[in-house]
Amino acid sequence: MNIEEFRRFGHELIDWIADYREKAQAGELPVMARVAPGALKAQLPAAAPQAPEPFEAVMRDLTSVILPACSHFQAPQFFGYFPSNSSLSAVLGDYVSTGLAQLGLNWQASPALTELEEVTTEWLRQMLDLSPAWSGVIQDTASTTTLVALLCARERATHHGAARGGLQESERPLVVYASSQSHSSVDKAALLAGFGRNNIHVIPVDDSYAMRPEALHETVEADRARGLLPCAVVATTGSTATTSLDPLAGIAKVARAQGLWMHVDAAMAGSAMILPECRPLWQGVEQADSLVINPHKWLGASFDCSVYFVRDPEHLVRVMSTNPSYLRTAADAQVKNFRDWGIPLGRRFRALKLWFLIREQGVSGLQARIRRDIGNARWLASRVDATPNWKRVAPSPLQTVCVRHEPPGLSSDALDTHTLAWVRRINESGKAYLTPAMLDGRWMVRVSIGAETTERRHVEELWALMQEQAARGS
Amino acid sequence: MNIEEFRRFGHELIDWIADYREKAQAGELPVMARVAPGALKAQLPAAAPQAPEPFEAVMRDLTSVILPACSHFQAPQFFGYFPSNSSLSAVLGDYVSTGLAQLGLNWQASPALTELEEVTTEWLRQMLDLSPAWSGVIQDTASTTTLVALLCARERATHHGAARGGLQESERPLVVYASSQSHSSVDKAALLAGFGRNNIHVIPVDDSYAMRPEALHETVEADRARGLLPCAVVATTGSTATTSLDPLAGIAKVARAQGLWMHVDAAMAGSAMILPECRPLWQGVEQADSLVINPHKWLGASFDCSVYFVRDPEHLVRVMSTNPSYLRTAADAQVKNFRDWGIPLGRRFRALKLWFLIREQGVSGLQARIRRDIGNARWLASRVDATPNWKRVAPSPLQTVCVRHEPPGLSSDALDTHTLAWVRRINESGKAYLTPAMLDGRWMVRVSIGAETTERRHVEELWALMQEQAARGS
Repeated sequence: MNIEEFRRFGHELIDWIADYREKAQAGELPVMARVAPGALKAQLPAAAPQAPEPFEAVMRDLTSVILPACSHFQAPQFFGYFPSNSSLSAVLGDYVSTGLAQLGLNWQASPALTELEEVTTEWLRQMLDLSPAWSGVIQDTASTTTLVALLCARERATHHGAARGGLQESERPLVVYASSQSHSSVDKAALLAGFGRNNIHVIPVDDSYAMRPEALHETVEADRARGLLPCAVVATTGSTATTSLDPLAGIAKVARAQGLWMHVDAAMAGSAMILPECRPLWQGVEQADSLVINPHKWLGASFDCSVYFVRDPEHLVRVMSTNPSYLRTAADAQVKNFRDWGIPLGRRFRALKLWFLIREQGVSGLQARIRRDIGNARWLASRVDATPNWKRVAPSPLQTVCVRHEPPGLSSDALDTHTLAWVRRINESGKAYLTPAMLDGRWMVRVSIGAETTERRHVEELWALMQEQAARGS
Repeated sequence: MNIEEFRRFGHELIDWIADYREKAQAGELPVMARVAPGALKAQLPAAAPQAPEPFEAVMRDLTSVILPACSHFQAPQFFGYFPSNSSLSAVLGDYVSTGLAQLGLNWQASPALTELEEVTTEWLRQMLDLSPAWSGVIQDTASTTTLVALLCARERATHHGAARGGLQESERPLVVYASSQSHSSVDKAALLAGFGRNNIHVIPVDDSYAMRPEALHETVEADRARGLLPCAVVATTGSTATTSLDPLAGIAKVARAQGLWMHVDAAMAGSAMILPECRPLWQGVEQADSLVINPHKWLGASFDCSVYFVRDPEHLVRVMSTNPSYLRTAADAQVKNFRDWGIPLGRRFRALKLWFLIREQGVSGLQARIRRDIGNARWLASRVDATPNWKRVAPSPLQTVCVRHEPPGLSSDALDTHTLAWVRRINESGKAYLTPAMLDGRWMVRVSIGAETTERRHVEELWALMQEQAARGS
């Protein structure tokens, strides 16, 4: 494709995306894709074309084959999982990134990529009111970031055992702690980092699904008495099932006393901390060693953009660095080489989307939107509380409301069947998208409010739909 | 930003990118950024704006602040590192990805994302003439992919020790083997996976910088006699310093006999395997357990797009899977959930850029370009060989030519100074970009030919520039 063709098709594509966003915003597309497994594959050739195809053919397939197999995270009726907002200014920032095609191997390979990442993560730090003791770097996802955190914890506990015999020579098994409500990525990270399932100890939660610090203390003490080496605790600010909030100050006290690395998974709820009124929810965060926040969720910075904040970047670099000759430059002593702040060597220019978003919205614009969503969730929570046979099954501190419709006389199993039935009917209707999850061994429905396009009226429409579909029984 | 503004600024941005590519292609920009460390940071506000800024201001800064701090990987005079091509059709594919903003948490969250990834990696498999025994998945970079491979190796050797006490309970230390020419990411992956530096055993290379299989055999035998547990070998197809090619068939023979997991790092040279005439270079690849190829390098699929091929996807899934309730869907039994094929849970719609590229170029178009680059490298190699005081310091099997200018009478140290001096002068001239690297303890210069825009005349101009700058002494 030459540059003139790029101009022509690029303009077409901008209009195609704009048209798509209009349709999604107007609710004209079924929110959850309505295709059978394998249906898309069956429509595409089994082998690559030998000769070039006209670009028009690609664009046609985009509309007729790809789009019908998409679910629409940007639709105002998207209440599933967590928001995966991709604000249009962030989209343009990402377009610059791909178009410039910088590759951040080291500072010299793209000074702009490195320094804008320093600037934007520093902006974000201030927006979150974190102290200047924190340094930020952009990773792909919280799964990767939490893995990096546990690797840092492992290496601190073993005095950089990686430089010797690795985890294989540990005399006392290292243990990682998390609550029963922590994200699946915490388990995954601990397993990949080599700790082993037996050394992931689950700490019970209280009635609000928050980790109990005194239970953490007791477990750590008991483990120590058994000859184990307590290594790290992962606390969650905004759990996936219910957005529960672990008490960071209480956990930090145990972590400090016991020499644990403390990592805070604020992937979801971190975005709320740009609001002063939300910051009491993570009081104690300054005592942590590391922290992850995903601006690609609620904030709108287009996937993937996960920010890892650390208090000891030198330790991080020592764990992650390699320094082969082909990557050395004269500038190395004066600059940051972010390849040593994470797993991948090559890096995309991800800071651009965050920079575009923050400038185009301003902090005030972002704050207003987050406040709007919290207000919408409060409204829904109040409706649920006021309606017979509906129950909120967990506190709603932020933008997720966890509900069950509980008609009288149903057994627990029948209730599960009922719950999964009405949420499936909603999802299959294409009018909204919700994800069920298990809590205390029973299914419930998470209403995650926070798509950028979701206004109060969409939440009102959803609530009507929920009542209508639940009334139809199992 | 509303949709109408997105249309307007999106069109502007397409033209901005097209103008940029024109300037880069015409050689109007210094290939290596000419900015001092910290210069960009100093031009930007220390804090985020409270109020929204006009988008015009962002676009202005893009031109005046960001662009001068970029190095230009897409320029025809880019001969540094390895190619990081971002073909314009792939760019548009990525634009669709960001605009649609799909999030691949599981199949249902975006059937298109999952199934197009199956289709395009299957196309690529056929293009590489790999047998149908391989299954592919897109990861971000080879660093991550090699980490995944070593984690799979670790879990096979320990019979899924992660499900018990992890690497902490290993009785015999597991050992990883790689050559002295393997990429720094192999060391990094082994350290992160917990093996420990002492358990990375370096196998010597022959005169062509290829791993010696008989040395591998001897080292493994000796390790076994010492009570160690040989676990994995990483072979390289196209090393970073010299694009040397490890003899895969010979290594595979040892790996099979000794029960080693064999991972092939073909991140760079894998793209050449779309040419039938290159395939003898990786003869034996079918005996490997895993393989990484980066279409975001030579092939042009826009960073990041690293394809991991495995022969036992069930093993991979067993190592990587987690299955929390909030990610379960009714379709799970019938579909692939790629979250269980790698580290991150959330996934971008990366297949689009590969799909756009392959269709727009056709296999024949991609083959022609790779052949062009290999021909250009042969031309330069022949010039170097025919010119007094110039020396090729390694074989040039593909598109990288490793050279030194060796004026008579220089000591080894003086030669290093001379080498670094002339390459620095070229890079600082802005007329071309080359990366020096160490080989056998001495600096040499890698001429990596393969930017999409690089034609024969650019290589001719580079060769003239090299001779001119080298003639100026140290």
